[in-house]
Amino acid sequence: MSEIRFDIGSLHAAYRDGVGVGDVIATIYARIETADDPGIFIHLAARADLLAAAEALGPFDPVTKPLWGVPVAVKDNIDVAGMPTTAACAEYAYMPQVDATVVARLNAAGALVVGKTNLDQFATGLVGVRTPYPIPRNAIDASLVPGGSSSGSAVATARGIVSFALGTDTAGSGRIPAGLNNIVGLKPTVGALSTGGVVPACRTLDCVSVFALTVDDAYAVFSVAAARDAADPYSRDIAVQPLAARPPVLSVGIPAKADLKFFGDAAMQAGFEASLAMLSWLGCRLVEIPFGDFYATANLLYEGAWVAERYAAIADFMEANEAAMHPVTRKIIGGARKLSAADAFRGLYALQAYRAKLTPVIASVDLFCVPTAPTHYTTVAVLADPVETNSLLGTYTNFVNLLDMCGIAVPTGTRDDGLPMSVTLLAAAGLDGLVASVARDLHAASGLTLGATGWRQPSAQPVGASAEDGTIELVVVGAHLSGMPLNGQLREAGARFCRAMRTASSYKLYELAGQATPKPGLVRVGNGGTAIEVEVWRLPADAFGHFVAAIPPPLGIGSVELDDGSIAKGFLVESVGLLGASDISSFGGWRRFLSDRVPV
Amino acid sequence: MSEIRFDIGSLHAAYRDGVGVGDVIATIYARIETADDPGIFIHLAARADLLAAAEALGPFDPVTKPLWGVPVAVKDNIDVAGMPTTAACAEYAYMPQVDATVVARLNAAGALVVGKTNLDQFATGLVGVRTPYPIPRNAIDASLVPGGSSSGSAVATARGIVSFALGTDTAGSGRIPAGLNNIVGLKPTVGALSTGGVVPACRTLDCVSVFALTVDDAYAVFSVAAARDAADPYSRDIAVQPLAARPPVLSVGIPAKADLKFFGDAAMQAGFEASLAMLSWLGCRLVEIPFGDFYATANLLYEGAWVAERYAAIADFMEANEAAMHPVTRKIIGGARKLSAADAFRGLYALQAYRAKLTPVIASVDLFCVPTAPTHYTTVAVLADPVETNSLLGTYTNFVNLLDMCGIAVPTGTRDDGLPMSVTLLAAAGLDGLVASVARDLHAASGLTLGATGWRQPSAQPVGASAEDGTIELVVVGAHLSGMPLNGQLREAGARFCRAMRTASSYKLYELAGQATPKPGLVRVGNGGTAIEVEVWRLPADAFGHFVAAIPPPLGIGSVELDDGSIAKGFLVESVGLLGASDISSFGGWRRFLSDRVPV
Repeated sequence: MSEIRFDIGSLHAAYRDGVGVGDVIATIYARIETADDPGIFIHLAARADLLAAAEALGPFDPVTKPLWGVPVAVKDNIDVAGMPTTAACAEYAYMPQVDATVVARLNAAGALVVGKTNLDQFATGLVGVRTPYPIPRNAIDASLVPGGSSSGSAVATARGIVSFALGTDTAGSGRIPAGLNNIVGLKPTVGALSTGGVVPACRTLDCVSVFALTVDDAYAVFSVAAARDAADPYSRDIAVQPLAARPPVLSVGIPAKADLKFFGDAAMQAGFEASLAMLSWLGCRLVEIPFGDFYATANLLYEGAWVAERYAAIADFMEANEAAMHPVTRKIIGGARKLSAADAFRGLYALQAYRAKLTPVIASVDLFCVPTAPTHYTTVAVLADPVETNSLLGTYTNFVNLLDMCGIAVPTGTRDDGLPMSVTLLAAAGLDGLVASVARDLHAASGLTLGATGWRQPSAQPVGASAEDGTIELVVVGAHLSGMPLNGQLREAGARFCRAMRTASSYKLYELAGQATPKPGLVRVGNGGTAIEVEVWRLPADAFGHFVAAIPPPLGIGSVELDDGSIAKGFLVESVGLLGASDISSFGGWRRFLSDRVPV
Repeated sequence: MSEIRFDIGSLHAAYRDGVGVGDVIATIYARIETADDPGIFIHLAARADLLAAAEALGPFDPVTKPLWGVPVAVKDNIDVAGMPTTAACAEYAYMPQVDATVVARLNAAGALVVGKTNLDQFATGLVGVRTPYPIPRNAIDASLVPGGSSSGSAVATARGIVSFALGTDTAGSGRIPAGLNNIVGLKPTVGALSTGGVVPACRTLDCVSVFALTVDDAYAVFSVAAARDAADPYSRDIAVQPLAARPPVLSVGIPAKADLKFFGDAAMQAGFEASLAMLSWLGCRLVEIPFGDFYATANLLYEGAWVAERYAAIADFMEANEAAMHPVTRKIIGGARKLSAADAFRGLYALQAYRAKLTPVIASVDLFCVPTAPTHYTTVAVLADPVETNSLLGTYTNFVNLLDMCGIAVPTGTRDDGLPMSVTLLAAAGLDGLVASVARDLHAASGLTLGATGWRQPSAQPVGASAEDGTIELVVVGAHLSGMPLNGQLREAGARFCRAMRTASSYKLYELAGQATPKPGLVRVGNGGTAIEVEVWRLPADAFGHFVAAIPPPLGIGSVELDDGSIAKGFLVESVGLLGASDISSFGGWRRFLSDRVPV
């Protein structure tokens, strides 16, 4: 059963193909057993209860219930009726009678709550080790911290135990653990998702966030969950845009070179540069932005008055049960006791000054791209220096909610040392759809597998088939790749980037002879072939026709087998065109050939 | 010289007619002498300096300098370069080197700063008696408090010493003193006018406000002064709408009967009811709104965390100079010392809860109308109970800035006891133009003289003349009056209400005989005539032509003399139509005839 992929599209396809919800539930528990990590869940649903909930859904109906039979894990500072809420402090626990507003919306859409997940106590931390429960293990590399505060939710998602999970995000708790576990972390605009039924951290800044294996899944959950809620005075009406094609040209603010901080982590720096190159290939124009005021804003969060919000949220409990608290959490939150009301307002004034200064800066570009985390820390390193490491992890996250920005952490690659690379796309409040649409392209371009599952990214449509809307997929291999000289032809024809992938291992790539500018040719071979890097684009059928008609010999359009076994239309070269051509298959792709070859 | 009227239109007309700025300045000092009130100004410009400033303006040029030669008084918590800022605390005083942003904008538009005015110390109060300087005398009735905190600015305006004055408004300081001195008090949307260079009271709520003799003047000053300012992080871009005709039908929220509070002041209650009747006549639909949550929001201001903003603003001074402060002010602001940062956030949460609850209520109507103050207090009464009386005065003002509403206090009549009646129109942030347009009609309908000057309200155009835009004024006397059955004909023709006034004392009003519905006839008589209540409307010339063409006999359009000596076109009746008619002149007008006559 463990072969059932839990990204929502694959899971729903399995249901459609006759897989029973009982099989899916069996898979959940099997994967929990395989994970063998007692740190992920603080409370797990009884199998019988989960089965009963599944049966209550009625027949498979993804139209009225877009999350029908989709398993979700919920961070244990968010109420689920009938499961204790602990906020990772057993002495604080209470038994909620009603679901948090967001959980109720997910349940109504057919989701199945598998359990409540571990967190940095009272959601205070970015590391995932500030818990009296066992520390969840990072799903990619067990020596690393899992990231926090939404540690268990991120790991459960990365391991494919659930399709998605809810976290919360005040300073970065919905982004850092996503970045550390090779998954997507959607941090909505403050107020887009109700915090009704959530244990507050900083009520003026708290967000419920979504961890998922893909951007499409995260955004689908966001779309179901977002709604103004009378139970949350900070909730807002944020229009949920359909996740359609993004504008072809976008300006993306990035920290000015002098302001980038990696604390000596060269692999992260290289990974970030590679991520920016991908953004450029995807048609984004990068704009360096001085980041000093963003960092200064970030410093307000823990140095300033906002820690008093954390204290206000649990003051009665803390005064009576201080010894029950995690020592690091206790020390941080206790710091609020010496802050006066005048201090609080001075903090608000300082923030307002930065907001006024940065609002035009934020408006000067379409979105921002920052590293999700500046560096990775091992659990050993964090336990040795719990406050400083935590603080540095928040370099690119702490300012975001203070400045009323939305964001999404998205995997972009694997660093040279094998650790996950992630960037966070940020934009002004309400632009959740925009950042998701760019994140989707970026994730597709990365070609990464999902979380720690090894599953390939699902295709929106079977490769090569005409979609219901009449569009056709096209495999490109050379000058039409993102960022290459002829890519504009595709965009002008209304083409949309789908994903980067490789051909089956039965092709050779040549540099053709006698061309004014370098030109590749892809050809299928009987044996001795290689997997070649390609991109899949989707065009309207009429544009596809015009495009094919205009291709000069010796190139043409044939069928290309991809490494997931599917077949699509794509560029091939006539063998007559290979006279004098050089076999460059060993480079693995045209892009790498152009960048790596030694000039002659 | 004291005959020069200082409303801006009259003053500019005087300049145009050759009056010199020296004459105007002489008038200012003469009026100060006549007022004989040492409580109005804390600092007065030297006559030579004022003359020098006036000469520096160059020739009269109201186009590039819309406030050319217009005298203004500035509340003494707003910086004017070269005049000490005291905030009504001599020990706090400092000498600013630059003007507050708003003052600089007024100066650039040609205004002349006459001096700095008295206030409730540190702008903390609504009474105007919390000052170590002499208490300014209410300009209408010296036994009443002047109102505060902008006491001196209001009195200087009401006495015609200046054309307008700047105040500040956090809890009502720009509205209460206007209401108590028969002038207009424009309280802009928070952030519309910069608070750069203003001694803060509550930085998150503070507004610079405008006192003027007319709504047009207040709005003209607002239009000059409003601009986003980098020096004030709370400043916002609020679009300044031209003060054009308001929509013909507006819904106006008023406190539900059970929620109205007058604290036993029957004259204020009657005055408010009369004001609402005027609004109805002007085409507004009144909607009763439960006011409990508005009052609860108001209570947050002094009972909650916001007093800590006042403390934060002067903490260093207060800790070193507490004995120098006014005892009432000291006690109130000192209360902040025991408030924690958690208390501050709890206050913000409580406010956010009310905002979330009231936002749809505020959006359910176009604007609100409330009494400016629930009752009037004598200085003796306030000195005897300084905190409670102050608190009650703020019944209808304290919630406004907390809920991000704009407002304008406008005189609507004289109570039966001779004291001024005022209401405040309120609306959501950014609707400053809408409330001003309704306030303008309301003020015109009141027919009141200006402040304590005895000056009549200026006409926008000479009565009866065709304006430059080709419109024509029409005097209506019967079924075309505001709120009457045929008023819609005027509105449909694009007519705009100008003002309510009376004819010269040479007319008789008849109820015509043999009509299906009651119909009046106005006729000029040789002697034994009466002044009859009429309204002046303004129509486009073509609509006026169609309108006249459609009037049935025995009515027609002739020339009507008004009680200011002007002549306008208006409804008259042919004498042949008076056969069998009843002389109803003793009622003074058609409206009163319909409401007072005994049914037969």
